[in-house]
Amino acid sequence: MTEDSLKFPVIGSDALKATFRSHASGVAIITSHDDHGNPIGFTATSVTSLGSNPPLVSFNIARGSSSYPQLVVGREVALHALSAENLELAQRMAGPKENRFTQADYELVGKVPVFRTAASILIGKVRERFEVESNAVVILDIIRGTEPMRQERPLVYYQRGYLTATERLAENS
Amino acid sequence: MTEDSLKFPVIGSDALKATFRSHASGVAIITSHDDHGNPIGFTATSVTSLGSNPPLVSFNIARGSSSYPQLVVGREVALHALSAENLELAQRMAGPKENRFTQADYELVGKVPVFRTAASILIGKVRERFEVESNAVVILDIIRGTEPMRQERPLVYYQRGYLTATERLAENS
Repeated sequence: MTEDSLKFPVIGSDALKATFRSHASGVAIITSHDDHGNPIGFTATSVTSLGSNPPLVSFNIARGSSSYPQLVVGREVALHALSAENLELAQRMAGPKENRFTQADYELVGKVPVFRTAASILIGKVRERFEVESNAVVILDIIRGTEPMRQERPLVYYQRGYLTATERLAENS
Repeated sequence: MTEDSLKFPVIGSDALKATFRSHASGVAIITSHDDHGNPIGFTATSVTSLGSNPPLVSFNIARGSSSYPQLVVGREVALHALSAENLELAQRMAGPKENRFTQADYELVGKVPVFRTAASILIGKVRERFEVESNAVVILDIIRGTEPMRQERPLVYYQRGYLTATERLAENS
């Protein structure tokens, strides 16, 4: 057990990028509204649970993004977990802003646009934001959610593309 | 576009749990050491990038876990991204603490235990911790990493089990 046989030749941001290309993530859509009531939203691969008592969610966002100034504390937000059937929606919400809400496939819950085709939807509120360099961790309080659809094909992001995971290797014992 | 057709019957933590069962995540292992130099580590499904300039990573942890008091600011940490071939390692590092480091399959980098069979390994340091209720978001500065192995079968956690994702649906354009 020496460190001789292990090499770490890749430095800093190159190392981070290489590793995260090979780290799978689930795909979600975050939606909310701006100060004028216009819908905002984006595809996010950093959504994760931060404990269930109380129910909290975290996700990461660039502070320079146009959505970040709108995600003020107290703002209502919808979080959509996506299945493979939602691929087109994931791609659209990761694409040009002007195309994200042009199709009339969303409904409003209060002022928040919600895509009912998503596999599962949570409604929450921004609780806190932690700024770190040019990014931020946003914490949501989760209020309520849909009855999740039964589905077996999650949408996964990995090596710069969308996949689904269907080959079960082991159950959690 | 009314809210009448969308129902949100599931409340609070039940809603969160139901949704996150159906939200896929990549699987990673975090390792470090305690104040006496003993190895610590655990399987984590909340690891995500927090920007590449500077290179930062975040993950979530229960403040009540035995590892949390050891992950003090400045502590060196290794982050292992896992492929399907690392299933047994993921299971072991999620199991009983006394079995996690009994097999001599790790090497020490400084005082940090590193599993060289992992698909990709990053070395970093705890930069900051944000405590929220009974959990915390831990931020790492990434220093360097291995040359990631070429692999096409990421390890994914979904619906209480381990899967791999091999069915590519679309490339990111």
